[in-house]
Amino acid sequence: MSALDWSHVFATRSERMRASEIRELLKLLDQPDIISFAGGIPDPALFPVAAIREAQDAILSDPKTAAQALQYSISEGYVPLRQWIIDFMAKNGVPCTLDNVLITCGSQQGLDFLAKMLLTPGDTALVEAPTYLGALQAFNAYEPRYDRLTLEGGNVTPAAYASAAAANGGRVKFAYCVPDFANPTGITMSVENRRKLLALAADLEIPVIEDSAYQALRFEGEGVPSILALDCAANGGDIEKTRTVYCGTFSKTLVPALRIGWIVAAQPLIQKLVLTKQAGDLHSSTLNQMVMARVAETTYDANVERAIALYRGRRDAMMAALATSMPKGVEWTKPEGGLFVWVTLPVGLDGADLLARAIAEERIAFVPGSAFFAVDAMTNTIRLNFSSPNEAEIAEGIARLGRLIARSMA
Amino acid sequence: MSALDWSHVFATRSERMRASEIRELLKLLDQPDIISFAGGIPDPALFPVAAIREAQDAILSDPKTAAQALQYSISEGYVPLRQWIIDFMAKNGVPCTLDNVLITCGSQQGLDFLAKMLLTPGDTALVEAPTYLGALQAFNAYEPRYDRLTLEGGNVTPAAYASAAAANGGRVKFAYCVPDFANPTGITMSVENRRKLLALAADLEIPVIEDSAYQALRFEGEGVPSILALDCAANGGDIEKTRTVYCGTFSKTLVPALRIGWIVAAQPLIQKLVLTKQAGDLHSSTLNQMVMARVAETTYDANVERAIALYRGRRDAMMAALATSMPKGVEWTKPEGGLFVWVTLPVGLDGADLLARAIAEERIAFVPGSAFFAVDAMTNTIRLNFSSPNEAEIAEGIARLGRLIARSMA
Repeated sequence: MSALDWSHVFATRSERMRASEIRELLKLLDQPDIISFAGGIPDPALFPVAAIREAQDAILSDPKTAAQALQYSISEGYVPLRQWIIDFMAKNGVPCTLDNVLITCGSQQGLDFLAKMLLTPGDTALVEAPTYLGALQAFNAYEPRYDRLTLEGGNVTPAAYASAAAANGGRVKFAYCVPDFANPTGITMSVENRRKLLALAADLEIPVIEDSAYQALRFEGEGVPSILALDCAANGGDIEKTRTVYCGTFSKTLVPALRIGWIVAAQPLIQKLVLTKQAGDLHSSTLNQMVMARVAETTYDANVERAIALYRGRRDAMMAALATSMPKGVEWTKPEGGLFVWVTLPVGLDGADLLARAIAEERIAFVPGSAFFAVDAMTNTIRLNFSSPNEAEIAEGIARLGRLIARSMA
Repeated sequence: MSALDWSHVFATRSERMRASEIRELLKLLDQPDIISFAGGIPDPALFPVAAIREAQDAILSDPKTAAQALQYSISEGYVPLRQWIIDFMAKNGVPCTLDNVLITCGSQQGLDFLAKMLLTPGDTALVEAPTYLGALQAFNAYEPRYDRLTLEGGNVTPAAYASAAAANGGRVKFAYCVPDFANPTGITMSVENRRKLLALAADLEIPVIEDSAYQALRFEGEGVPSILALDCAANGGDIEKTRTVYCGTFSKTLVPALRIGWIVAAQPLIQKLVLTKQAGDLHSSTLNQMVMARVAETTYDANVERAIALYRGRRDAMMAALATSMPKGVEWTKPEGGLFVWVTLPVGLDGADLLARAIAEERIAFVPGSAFFAVDAMTNTIRLNFSSPNEAEIAEGIARLGRLIARSMA
């Protein structure tokens, strides 16, 4: 007797969940002789371990706070942590209250919940091409159609988006973007384009999902207001009149493994999301939320400063190495912050093919650009991460990459 | 200008997420003069605070394990924790390997992921009447039709279930139950009925979702093998030939707020669930998983013993108080474990009406039974919890409840 065949019980949609390329790539990080530009993870040297221990101790040494920290708690999230987020958002041009804030298990859970709340199968999601792979994985489960979000150079009108969506039997339900030092491109959306995006969303009567994972990690240049801040400003500072859903996270600024992110938006959206959170996992870890509230209070600013200094040096090392090592015909972005550089190879070179050779011939890894496209894939692209390798590894790894590309072009 | 109207952007399904009665009820617990039988939460006196602090210290004082504990990790879950679960399952008659185990954020997330993986809108889920409210909330988001799972006294055949599902345009996709000291009834499913359920599921070619939240909390009587253990035994000990999906949790035996549960099942199901986990929130808190692996290793057995002793005393107190205080015509279950007693009032009395009067007139709270029915609601029922109130509160609260019911019957 053989194992059971389960194909008939799975939901239609789960057939669309492809085995993830990221998971396979992450396994490579365990091979010590590989220089990996594949990850998107922070350098653990930046983790505020002492502050976390101090917070744990303070919370668990008092029987009252220990009992609270280890017990079930409300789905909305720990009030002092939401209060810290209110202050953080206010400093960044977004006046809001407790009822505008939901704590999530990283911003990934925020993206999943938003897709669950908004998408009926066949609806259209507007996404950049390329965009964050994890967002596509979260959205895919709800079976959207994708359309390309274009704000400059494109000639798509709101009416054209709407009628293409209607032709597919659905509606445009949201626009998603990573406006600051985007994953995977490193590019920052201009204020003008943020305003264009809000105008487009107003025409289509849809929310804008602003994935703000990297916003705090600016190495140089002037900060650009968040889309939600621009939306608030255009509405007399009243968040209840805005259409932007801001997804924040501590994963890149403090620590990923406590799994604490947040969503800030108008109350009708947050109220629905709280019910989604309750049905999904009741609430995020009470202890982790209490720890994060203390750690954010004491170390957020200093830790962001440390991260900026470290990653700026690595970005500089990568820019210098690319300038030295890349053959003519290769182009790359110059990010003012974040974790990623996007490389465009000469047309005809394929990023996935190059990865296979990179591992075999040069012991380096990266993510093929095609993984980041829901539509209009450009296969002659790769994503390089500069937050994990140190400066010496960056110089050596990019030299190897340059040799490999030169050989591939020959 | 008024706030935006968002009704047109929500997914069809989210309209089905009702504001939860549990959330409203939990708020009552904050009123100190209310004796609450409404919760379903463990007594914080049982939390192994010292063991948790010890584990935190050990992990965070070593820079290597600290860096691991605070970094991103694999979606499947921390290997030593899954290894502990393998040993635990083996002791309970379920031989399995790492590839059969996924870590979730409490068993609630397991239920959400299973529904997401299995249900296409219009499919049928078989559930007991009454059943766990949180399961219904998780399932509702995926728009199933419900049919009542009956194993004794009913005369529904597999063919009848299947044709009723087909008439609704879907298929029967799974059967869900809480077989041990069920929430909300406290009733345990007999071995015979577990076997009948497996036979029914085999006929329908569907998985059985076994919610095992309370299994470890047996106060008296002989333990009943889990449905998955019976399924394994009937298949020569080969979990790959089983159809049962076992949802476990540490929430009731150790601590809820680290949000650690698990799913054990055949590999094809786990592989799909791992992709769902990755898309949903990447992974559960690495630190919490590492802490739980140590705490489970050192304190699981002793903590379960302490919980059993404490809750047995409270169950006894509640049985004595009910016998003393209830008017004739009121019936209740006698649970051999778990956290709940199910009370059936004389026909004509309504549990929800009674709750309103209970709070106003007697300063006691409980959950009206109607909240726990997806089909065939019996409104003359209420759920009483005995894990939160102490024995004196139980005696006093049940005396008040008896007075109130007597007045209501008059």
